[in-house]
Amino acid sequence: MARWQPGAAERMRGAALDLFVERGYDATTAADIAAAAGLTERTFYRHFTDKREVLFWGSDEFEASFLDPIDALPPDAPAMTVVVAAVVGGAGRFTPERRDFATLRAGIVDATPPLRERERDKMARLASLVAQRLIGRGVPATDAQLAAHSGVTVFTTAFARWVAGDARSPEALCADLFDDLARLTGQLNSRTETV
Amino acid sequence: MARWQPGAAERMRGAALDLFVERGYDATTAADIAAAAGLTERTFYRHFTDKREVLFWGSDEFEASFLDPIDALPPDAPAMTVVVAAVVGGAGRFTPERRDFATLRAGIVDATPPLRERERDKMARLASLVAQRLIGRGVPATDAQLAAHSGVTVFTTAFARWVAGDARSPEALCADLFDDLARLTGQLNSRTETV
Repeated sequence: MARWQPGAAERMRGAALDLFVERGYDATTAADIAAAAGLTERTFYRHFTDKREVLFWGSDEFEASFLDPIDALPPDAPAMTVVVAAVVGGAGRFTPERRDFATLRAGIVDATPPLRERERDKMARLASLVAQRLIGRGVPATDAQLAAHSGVTVFTTAFARWVAGDARSPEALCADLFDDLARLTGQLNSRTETV
Repeated sequence: MARWQPGAAERMRGAALDLFVERGYDATTAADIAAAAGLTERTFYRHFTDKREVLFWGSDEFEASFLDPIDALPPDAPAMTVVVAAVVGGAGRFTPERRDFATLRAGIVDATPPLRERERDKMARLASLVAQRLIGRGVPATDAQLAAHSGVTVFTTAFARWVAGDARSPEALCADLFDDLARLTGQLNSRTETV
């Protein structure tokens, strides 16, 4: 077996998802995942700390797809413009050929408490990174928190619809959900105007 | 000795918080918590499944403080009116005499990954319960998700400010943050109007 395996992490990710679906998360070991991918357990542990991490492989690229578009914006862009650019950038990563994997993955993550917790951790970290970028652009901390978390809510809601079979692309879903959010929070305005 | 004796669960919650702060979460056992509260380990396990649950005691009352105000609203109340009522209701639970405990608790939860994950689980569950109430009132599922999660974002952001020493009450902070959210999402309107 080759010492360096191109695509080893990606293969183990696919194998882990299949095993989690077939046998359940608890009944699957790191050794099972490595074997199903034609790799050794040692190779598994060169890539991942434990089996929970396998479905979170690629998180640097995931985060970069949200953060890179921010850097392309002018320094005085409004906070929500920054958030829309980040969220639409992140959504753009999820091309049609990724939907089958994403749908299976979402099903097993939603049904498995340790994976669900890890997924929330991933999204909380994303919100925090976006908020930090906003703060770095001079947005007050509270606005940065509200704007970043609103963007992550739009993303996760759009993503859930996409894996549930909505025909729109993730970007189109996010654009529509930002419109929905603006309409909903517009209901706050009558209150706001009397303050 | 005081005439009024707080209940066993509440005593163990206070003891757990003290021990987590003094010794750290990992070094504290269920038996330690029970002993510090003057109770047996058996009593501990009558109240909690494990030490992680101790700081989440009272979650039924916590959830009810958000959900009960919803039931008092007319059936045609707009989604965000429902969410504001829920969040201001929940915030009202946190009276000034609770701030010291809440501040210590937030510090240990933020610094302890298993507690932080459990706290996110608690807030995700709250958002889901509020969304379900909205759906039960005829709000479309996507609007219900966006509105409920926006409300939870306002609550958690307000709560973080309160435990950080903001002089405003949690209710006043939530009211101000809903105004901030309306202002921020108003930045989306120029985009919305051209769609």
